[in-house]
Amino acid sequence: MIVIGERINGQFPQVSKAIDARDAKFIQDLAHEQVDAGAHILDVNTGPGRDDSAAVMAWLVKTIQDAVQVRLSIDSPGLKVQQAGLAECKLEPMINSTTAEQKRMEKFFPLAAEHNAEIICLTINEKGIPNSADARSEIAMLLLANAMDRGVNPEKVYLDPVVLPISAAQDQCPMLCEAITSFRALNTPPPKTVVGLSNVSSGAEERSLLNRTYLAMLLGRGLDAAIVDPNDVELMKVVKAAEVLLNQKLYAHSFLKA
Amino acid sequence: MIVIGERINGQFPQVSKAIDARDAKFIQDLAHEQVDAGAHILDVNTGPGRDDSAAVMAWLVKTIQDAVQVRLSIDSPGLKVQQAGLAECKLEPMINSTTAEQKRMEKFFPLAAEHNAEIICLTINEKGIPNSADARSEIAMLLLANAMDRGVNPEKVYLDPVVLPISAAQDQCPMLCEAITSFRALNTPPPKTVVGLSNVSSGAEERSLLNRTYLAMLLGRGLDAAIVDPNDVELMKVVKAAEVLLNQKLYAHSFLKA
Repeated sequence: MIVIGERINGQFPQVSKAIDARDAKFIQDLAHEQVDAGAHILDVNTGPGRDDSAAVMAWLVKTIQDAVQVRLSIDSPGLKVQQAGLAECKLEPMINSTTAEQKRMEKFFPLAAEHNAEIICLTINEKGIPNSADARSEIAMLLLANAMDRGVNPEKVYLDPVVLPISAAQDQCPMLCEAITSFRALNTPPPKTVVGLSNVSSGAEERSLLNRTYLAMLLGRGLDAAIVDPNDVELMKVVKAAEVLLNQKLYAHSFLKA
Repeated sequence: MIVIGERINGQFPQVSKAIDARDAKFIQDLAHEQVDAGAHILDVNTGPGRDDSAAVMAWLVKTIQDAVQVRLSIDSPGLKVQQAGLAECKLEPMINSTTAEQKRMEKFFPLAAEHNAEIICLTINEKGIPNSADARSEIAMLLLANAMDRGVNPEKVYLDPVVLPISAAQDQCPMLCEAITSFRALNTPPPKTVVGLSNVSSGAEERSLLNRTYLAMLLGRGLDAAIVDPNDVELMKVVKAAEVLLNQKLYAHSFLKA
């Protein structure tokens, strides 16, 4: 599984404070911690309500790359913030994210093509988040077709069925398992899939248990990548166990240490 | 998920000793522990190498039922042992198990019909355990058809794709995830499915982690029942988390205590 670390996000109060203070060490420590814990890509999100989001994104990307050689996922719905982040990326970037809304696809697919970036594509359209696996799959097909039309290789596309909190939309949880199967049936080789995992347990008790159980279910369906907290030790154990159970990594008695 | 407790099995040395000594309290404590931990059915296996297996099975069934009102799964390949156990069952019994071998189906399906029992059906035929999800699915169809021909309601059939140890047959682990999906596509409503879970980690370190991660994957595919150790607290937490994530039980913040 491709582990995308979620912790450099201005929605977390401590990260927001570090951004305000341009505290490079705090951000770099967060980057190191996540990479040491097994993250392959770090998500970078300035958080909401900043007038200088583009400048902050550029600073974050530079600051992280001064400390760690790691791929970054530029997490913003704003075109200027995306451009500022992508311009600084030294390794293959990821764009997080576009939806299937025409006005977004028009902006973000050309941007992905220009920067040779991977791109997370949420199965959301002008009407919102659909209420079935099939409707999500229709939108996924539209996203793949549009990406190709605008010069994005489908192998760069990560389809995201949009995880919702179990406390608010319990019926959507099993639907997402089916959506992963449906997305993978859209093409050969199967399109890549990703989820923002932690949202499932937003507002819940037992967050880690819900997160890691849901992750195992989705991995069992063929999920390729997830935005997670790589410092959740029990979650990362499940990732390693799932990789050997899915025969993606060779089993050894010491697989947890590998 | 239907939790079938695995602990009353003569393959465990302490259980074997208790059987030799006809230590009713030891067996009854095991029964209580498993039911208290959430088991819906208790598997009962005399263990190998006994001349008096039929008498032992009858004693075990009576002994357990003297202590706990719980359904039992009579776990033996021997017809006489099955008959001895089934004759004593006060609640709807489960037969564990038949294969798709003609000589077994001829014996065990009529037995299931006679006792109105549920029956675990292993997708094994005269050639052994097949090496793909599709081949398992063909055998599953044969089992369902034979069960019906011999008077067993398909709702009483639990198809078992046969879990093998990851240390010996790693490539079979992902195949079983697919097999659950294939089995469920064989009929409407979907046939029921079951696994003997703990076999996946036989001989492995990190047994509980492997067991509970695999269980979450299989539940995400629609697995109905599993033979497990209900006293594995972390495993039972995963069962509860999976049930709310699959929208089978209503989510509440306190779902673990429910």
